[in-house]
Amino acid sequence: MLKVVTKEEAVQYVRSFAKIAPCRTEAVPLPQAAARVLAVDVHAAEDVPAFDRTTMDGYAVCAADTFGAGAAQPAQLEIAGEVAMGEAPPFSLRRGQCARISTGGMLPAGADAVVMVEHTDEADGLCLIYKSVFPGENVTRRGDDIACGTTALPKGTRLLPQHVGVLAALGQYSVPVFRKPTVAVLSTGDEIVRGDPAAGQVRDVNSDLLCALLAAHGCEAVFSGVVPDKRTAILEALRRCIGSADAVLISGGSSAGARDMTVSVLDELGEVFFHGIAMKPGKPTIFGAANGKPVFGLPGHPLASYFVFRLIVSEYLDALHGTAQKRVLRTSPLSVNVPSNHGREEYLCVRINERGEAVPLHTKSGIISVLSAADGFIRIPRDTEGLDKGTLVEVYDL
Amino acid sequence: MLKVVTKEEAVQYVRSFAKIAPCRTEAVPLPQAAARVLAVDVHAAEDVPAFDRTTMDGYAVCAADTFGAGAAQPAQLEIAGEVAMGEAPPFSLRRGQCARISTGGMLPAGADAVVMVEHTDEADGLCLIYKSVFPGENVTRRGDDIACGTTALPKGTRLLPQHVGVLAALGQYSVPVFRKPTVAVLSTGDEIVRGDPAAGQVRDVNSDLLCALLAAHGCEAVFSGVVPDKRTAILEALRRCIGSADAVLISGGSSAGARDMTVSVLDELGEVFFHGIAMKPGKPTIFGAANGKPVFGLPGHPLASYFVFRLIVSEYLDALHGTAQKRVLRTSPLSVNVPSNHGREEYLCVRINERGEAVPLHTKSGIISVLSAADGFIRIPRDTEGLDKGTLVEVYDL
Repeated sequence: MLKVVTKEEAVQYVRSFAKIAPCRTEAVPLPQAAARVLAVDVHAAEDVPAFDRTTMDGYAVCAADTFGAGAAQPAQLEIAGEVAMGEAPPFSLRRGQCARISTGGMLPAGADAVVMVEHTDEADGLCLIYKSVFPGENVTRRGDDIACGTTALPKGTRLLPQHVGVLAALGQYSVPVFRKPTVAVLSTGDEIVRGDPAAGQVRDVNSDLLCALLAAHGCEAVFSGVVPDKRTAILEALRRCIGSADAVLISGGSSAGARDMTVSVLDELGEVFFHGIAMKPGKPTIFGAANGKPVFGLPGHPLASYFVFRLIVSEYLDALHGTAQKRVLRTSPLSVNVPSNHGREEYLCVRINERGEAVPLHTKSGIISVLSAADGFIRIPRDTEGLDKGTLVEVYDL
Repeated sequence: MLKVVTKEEAVQYVRSFAKIAPCRTEAVPLPQAAARVLAVDVHAAEDVPAFDRTTMDGYAVCAADTFGAGAAQPAQLEIAGEVAMGEAPPFSLRRGQCARISTGGMLPAGADAVVMVEHTDEADGLCLIYKSVFPGENVTRRGDDIACGTTALPKGTRLLPQHVGVLAALGQYSVPVFRKPTVAVLSTGDEIVRGDPAAGQVRDVNSDLLCALLAAHGCEAVFSGVVPDKRTAILEALRRCIGSADAVLISGGSSAGARDMTVSVLDELGEVFFHGIAMKPGKPTIFGAANGKPVFGLPGHPLASYFVFRLIVSEYLDALHGTAQKRVLRTSPLSVNVPSNHGREEYLCVRINERGEAVPLHTKSGIISVLSAADGFIRIPRDTEGLDKGTLVEVYDL
């Protein structure tokens, strides 16, 4: 039953599982779409802007009528009218004519440029133009921003405020997004308590940490209790969560015996795909499924639990949504030698010092505080004896 | 009335205003604290861990009893008992004794290290130890992670999942955070509509963009309508928003006349601190206050509105919360020469190409789509004639 995989194999397993059980979709109103993930490519159904617009206050002209104009020899154009904001001009320009226009106004037919008001004068119903403009000057042409028919935003986009702006510009007031997966979170361990611990007991950290991580990754996290290290209790809790949620995270079972219990329960309820990943921290990780729902067994150590979420569970969620996150913050030289020779891929929290170097944070005792002191983390490949001081390493976002 | 300031002066104005009208605070349950901003320093009221814990399955020992032990000459220790998870051991170790213990268990008095089970054997009530350990080996000492009395998280921390984990470890189930400011959002312009535009009309983009930006910055955004460019309408809308919200963003009034109307209304209701910032985009920005509430007048152009939010309004919100955001993503060489000689600080959206260079995005016509195509933005100082190809520039996070 003990199947240990590399980190790459683990990622393959969870990504493949996401593909066979994809996420359902729903439509939400635009103001609620921020931070959700687009479930379709959004194609522009109209041009943005929808008409040629001026970007300046001034006069709409035919650019050719201004060629050669200067301070000494202004062009003189007849004023055909004024463009009212929010209306199509009810007139068009003939050569030798111009029209007053305010920023955002629609160019009348016959106009192809705008002269800024600062370079003009009005006198006797004529407009004097002291500076020539080229065709298109001070004008945003129809479709310049987003052309009708193009893909404005691809499926899988996690909607940032600027994407919400694009959808508003297209009049997409109902947005097809992936449903938020409901994920049940269980902690196990005879020593784990919520509320005040007695001697030998430990506060539950993983439930809060994992629920917050899930929420930040666009899931509905459901805290589902602390379970003692008893086979029947774990069996009952897992069965309940599998029945109600789209996925389950069960953390803890720090000791080898407790871990084996989770594996054997999962094996009874469904299937265990792997048990153990060659990474540090994070080795005692379990992945399986029951009733078509994925079950992740995470380490009891909060720091290890964090890294397994960040490197394995989040890959599952990304695959579910078709998102790909940019995660490298920067490339920095290591401030010290870092040994690593245990045959596992290793992850280390780092701080960036004032010289821009990555300083590994001491994590022997680091249960959780090291994460809030860190600027990011680095990866030490499995096939090295560690990394030398000065080696350029990629620093990943926490 | 026209007071133009530099970007630095504008930031000074809005930060000073935040200091004279600080944000109220409230306590929220830990699971709702994610993404909120801590209103106090959180001091640890207990040690984490609360007792010396083993990080391995094995035997708790006095390290000195194992000195010199090896495969050929194991140390032989009497087994005094077994540590039950979640309980204080009811016995202590004398020299020459050891105790069975599982990961996370509490060390009995007299023990100062743990020997991994892999390096032991049991026979005839004795434990054979094949490898020596040093004092503290495989043990996390009381307070090693967070020591009682230290500052675990400083005031002003925007709570990430890892911070939620720290609070859980400390048993801080009620978290003092800043109240979310309620910010009213108004769009102005005779041409601006929600729903389908007629010829010459334009969809409202700024309301959705600014509401999403406010939400992402921890505010309650309240869309408060599109207002025509009429003095009485703007006066009535601003008065209503000032009465109900903690702050107001009013965008639009693209033309000079419409902008002057907002300034004059604000002057009637309260005070105008500045009108115009020497930055590009973003010049026609207004800042004032009425009834003790700050009012930001933003440009009608969504891209300009975005940058004014990002560089000015967000400075106000940060000052309100005492947060300081890290915003430089990376330092990259420019892919081309960038001219800039208009005496204003300039902001340009950039993409990072496969060679790691910052490629400025064409923004002449960029209303909004340029933001969703960009990886970040760069700043061109006021006192340059532009920047040469290859110049190292800081790329800021969008």
